[in-house]
Amino acid sequence: MTNERFERGWEKLMEVDGEGGARVVESLKNIAPDLARYVVEFAFGDIYSREGLSLKERQLITISSLLTQGGCEPQLTVHLNAALNVGLTPGEIVEGILHCIPYTGFPRVLNAMLTAKSVFQERGILAAES
Amino acid sequence: MTNERFERGWEKLMEVDGEGGARVVESLKNIAPDLARYVVEFAFGDIYSREGLSLKERQLITISSLLTQGGCEPQLTVHLNAALNVGLTPGEIVEGILHCIPYTGFPRVLNAMLTAKSVFQERGILAAES
Amino acid sequence: MTNERFERGWEKLMEVDGEGGARVVESLKNIAPDLARYVVEFAFGDIYSREGLSLKERQLITISSLLTQGGCEPQLTVHLNAALNVGLTPGEIVEGILHCIPYTGFPRVLNAMLTAKSVFQERGILAAES
Amino acid sequence: MTNERFERGWEKLMEVDGEGGARVVESLKNIAPDLARYVVEFAFGDIYSREGLSLKERQLITISSLLTQGGCEPQLTVHLNAALNVGLTPGEIVEGILHCIPYTGFPRVLNAMLTAKSVFQERGILAAES
Amino acid sequence: MTNERFERGWEKLMEVDGEGGARVVESLKNIAPDLARYVVEFAFGDIYSREGLSLKERQLITISSLLTQGGCEPQLTVHLNAALNVGLTPGEIVEGILHCIPYTGFPRVLNAMLTAKSVFQERGILAAES
Amino acid sequence: MTNERFERGWEKLMEVDGEGGARVVESLKNIAPDLARYVVEFAFGDIYSREGLSLKERQLITISSLLTQGGCEPQLTVHLNAALNVGLTPGEIVEGILHCIPYTGFPRVLNAMLTAKSVFQERGILAAES
Repeated sequence: MTNERFERGWEKLMEVDGEGGARVVESLKNIAPDLARYVVEFAFGDIYSREGLSLKERQLITISSLLTQGGCEPQLTVHLNAALNVGLTPGEIVEGILHCIPYTGFPRVLNAMLTAKSVFQERGILAAES
Repeated sequence: MTNERFERGWEKLMEVDGEGGARVVESLKNIAPDLARYVVEFAFGDIYSREGLSLKERQLITISSLLTQGGCEPQLTVHLNAALNVGLTPGEIVEGILHCIPYTGFPRVLNAMLTAKSVFQERGILAAES
Repeated sequence: MTNERFERGWEKLMEVDGEGGARVVESLKNIAPDLARYVVEFAFGDIYSREGLSLKERQLITISSLLTQGGCEPQLTVHLNAALNVGLTPGEIVEGILHCIPYTGFPRVLNAMLTAKSVFQERGILAAES
Repeated sequence: MTNERFERGWEKLMEVDGEGGARVVESLKNIAPDLARYVVEFAFGDIYSREGLSLKERQLITISSLLTQGGCEPQLTVHLNAALNVGLTPGEIVEGILHCIPYTGFPRVLNAMLTAKSVFQERGILAAES
Repeated sequence: MTNERFERGWEKLMEVDGEGGARVVESLKNIAPDLARYVVEFAFGDIYSREGLSLKERQLITISSLLTQGGCEPQLTVHLNAALNVGLTPGEIVEGILHCIPYTGFPRVLNAMLTAKSVFQERGILAAES
Repeated sequence: MTNERFERGWEKLMEVDGEGGARVVESLKNIAPDLARYVVEFAFGDIYSREGLSLKERQLITISSLLTQGGCEPQLTVHLNAALNVGLTPGEIVEGILHCIPYTGFPRVLNAMLTAKSVFQERGILAAES
């Protein structure tokens, strides 16, 4: 039932993306609420709720995909926060980004790393630069 | 020392990619042996030899990046084999590919899944279709 | 209910992609049947079944997106057939592909046009070259 | 004659992109006026002036291509305005963007939808958020 | 005048791409002759005929762009031949491809290098492998 | 020896990217100093230090690759400055960007050209607009 998928998805969205996910949903409400609904029902209710991989593994895969596409800095910000939310350490996140250099080259990795730097600074993991 | 990086890289390449990696190196020898050397030294000697993530996690990240770029079926074939080599189960690999749907859409995922199907058939994990 | 989405999706898939869609579903059955299910439920049951655009308009959008990504020739083949299935003329399809030149450049457009040529030849719209 | 292509293109550019197109041409005048000339002559004088598809269909194709490439927010802004200029309704534009989810995934669609939201707010179609 | 652009473009196409270019034009004649015409008039009559860079420099730029996009192996084949036609040495071409590793990563570079290997073998520059 | 590669790379980085390169290295120091090290050792110590192409040719290739990927405006800014540093004229840079239109389409070229405009204005080559 759609309702069940939405509820399962919303719970998962809150667990993974937290506030960042809620803000995405909110930002769509007066332009395309169905887009928000599909994010919840399909991306989180169907896909993220599957078994077979841990949430940490799922976030490493997500970051790799967003980094590789390029131009997804807003989504990277949400999912770098999500990576911390599900228990990846900053060191593991940095390592996952570095691992992409041979596959994507340096520019995509540099953009992702500086996005991670901003996320870490905002969460007090790194001191903001004076 | 370059030599040390090459040796460490070669050992890692054999551990991860095995025969598939050796074939890539071989295919370059009379056109661009330096390209093969950089794959060994940099991709495997520098990056794959880092600590902080398991080889299973590294392969999930690699598959996600190759899948997302598109047009990398030869490299996907090498790294889907590598994923099995380092201990990911076929189920985990399928799951990692499925996880990318919300980020890349269906076409990239379909291409990767059918590449995985070929790899699994060649290794006898799936019966080849009559 | 999932079942309802699947049934609506399957009907739409048959209407739009026809045999080509059925072959994609079939090809996934012993590796990732859930991927086929998501294509049916989400892509066709949720998205293609929406109102607000005609199926002809939806196929022009689909072809533009597949063409622009590159490396999606198998999916382009399915959706060029689908474009004919829903009533676009060969001339409109060619025109839709040409329209992308300023946005994607020539290589992506050339690849799509030669894919269209194969589809048209297979359906007897163009004589196969001797 | 080049002149004729330019004149036809300029007229078409004004009809489709209006002010947004004029601003692009203006922005190039002291760095690469030939680039502006090619936009006018080739993209609008040659391609947009072709028959066989309506301007509404052309804008749906254009938005799909720009959305799919990613990193084209400035061009999307021009062409979302153009979509309204040639008579697509906001609902049709939103629908066209949503249609891309299965082909591009959510991140590209989210970026395009939020660009559409800005365009609609600037034109008073959506109330700006307080 | 269109005619003049076409003639200048055709001459330039023959100088740069030679037979490979003629085959592309031929392949389009019963599906989209206007696409061939735009390749000749715009890509070669307008752009390749500009001054300010040598044809060798233009081919290095073209190869870099095609390599970076991925999925353009047919066009790479034409333009690797073109690179030899305008006087780049095999060594310079290999060097130009290698230079892209830090920007695109290894997979795109490997695909391009193996395409170059095929081109060089077909022209007798490299011995075909037994 | 790693040390030798780093020293050669640093010298080359300073020669090519100058201050822009130093700022990239600096920005990474408290998040991923190894990423900066790989840029220096591999991209500049290994690749940029090769023979066979001039630094001018290398910068034309680099700009083409960054432009084609899209979403690399920060790296384009560094490398457009680098292009001037190694002796390309503003006219040659503009020409190199224009040459990509047939391969990438207008949006990527427009984004790169406006990035070049900013770089040229900052270096006093173009008057800033009032």
